[in-house]
Amino acid sequence: MRMTKNIYFAGAIRGGRADWAFYQEMVRLLGRYGTVLTEHVGNSELAISGEDMPDREIHDRDLTWLHQSDYLVAEVTTPSLGVGYEIGKATEWGKPVLCLFRRGSDRKLSAMIAGSDRVTVSIYDDLDDVREIISTFLG
Amino acid sequence: MRMTKNIYFAGAIRGGRADWAFYQEMVRLLGRYGTVLTEHVGNSELAISGEDMPDREIHDRDLTWLHQSDYLVAEVTTPSLGVGYEIGKATEWGKPVLCLFRRGSDRKLSAMIAGSDRVTVSIYDDLDDVREIISTFLG
Repeated sequence: MRMTKNIYFAGAIRGGRADWAFYQEMVRLLGRYGTVLTEHVGNSELAISGEDMPDREIHDRDLTWLHQSDYLVAEVTTPSLGVGYEIGKATEWGKPVLCLFRRGSDRKLSAMIAGSDRVTVSIYDDLDDVREIISTFLG
Repeated sequence: MRMTKNIYFAGAIRGGRADWAFYQEMVRLLGRYGTVLTEHVGNSELAISGEDMPDREIHDRDLTWLHQSDYLVAEVTTPSLGVGYEIGKATEWGKPVLCLFRRGSDRKLSAMIAGSDRVTVSIYDDLDDVREIISTFLG
């Protein structure tokens, strides 16, 4: 039996600089509650170079990690097909899903995410909010 | 037994003007092969006003339609959480999925979509390509 929880963190790879600062901090915070399988998503170099792997391998590796996870935590301020795809899978697989959306962006969260009863959506302003939201969800 | 096929068409609601012209034409073309349950996605007024319905109702209605569909056809040039979510669900439910990506945008298609063996990805330049791709997939 695993003693620690596995956490899958997802965020738009092409998020802007503001997103990346939050991703990095989220990965760090999640690390207090378990093993973050997708730690590389908090690495801003990914935004520049992408991953040097065939798409099929990235896809299969990420879905294997998602299967192995106890939770999906997704930053959803910047729209992303990949993140949406992972939320669709995780809700089908009965995994608890937390979506973090930053207030003040001019974006509106997709009704498919905001309207799902299998997803917890939390709005944040700053890192204090993020800390509290994650602690409530995982603590 | 239903005599016609049901087709679910998906596209980013916040796609730009170029996207909408293609969405509209795709909905029209798909109508030759079956009933397009999400015809409203081809209506550009949606981009301005959005849908005047609670998120939960939009979500549940769209997932009911997706369940009732024989195919999912998605335009994936503009990243979208909702479209990714629907692709994630449809691949779990064993529905054939066609993703259309327009060449020449500076975007790269997500590895989660490009790398899925349950998704047919087709690149298009113009409406002639779209016509041929749809005919090959549904004809």
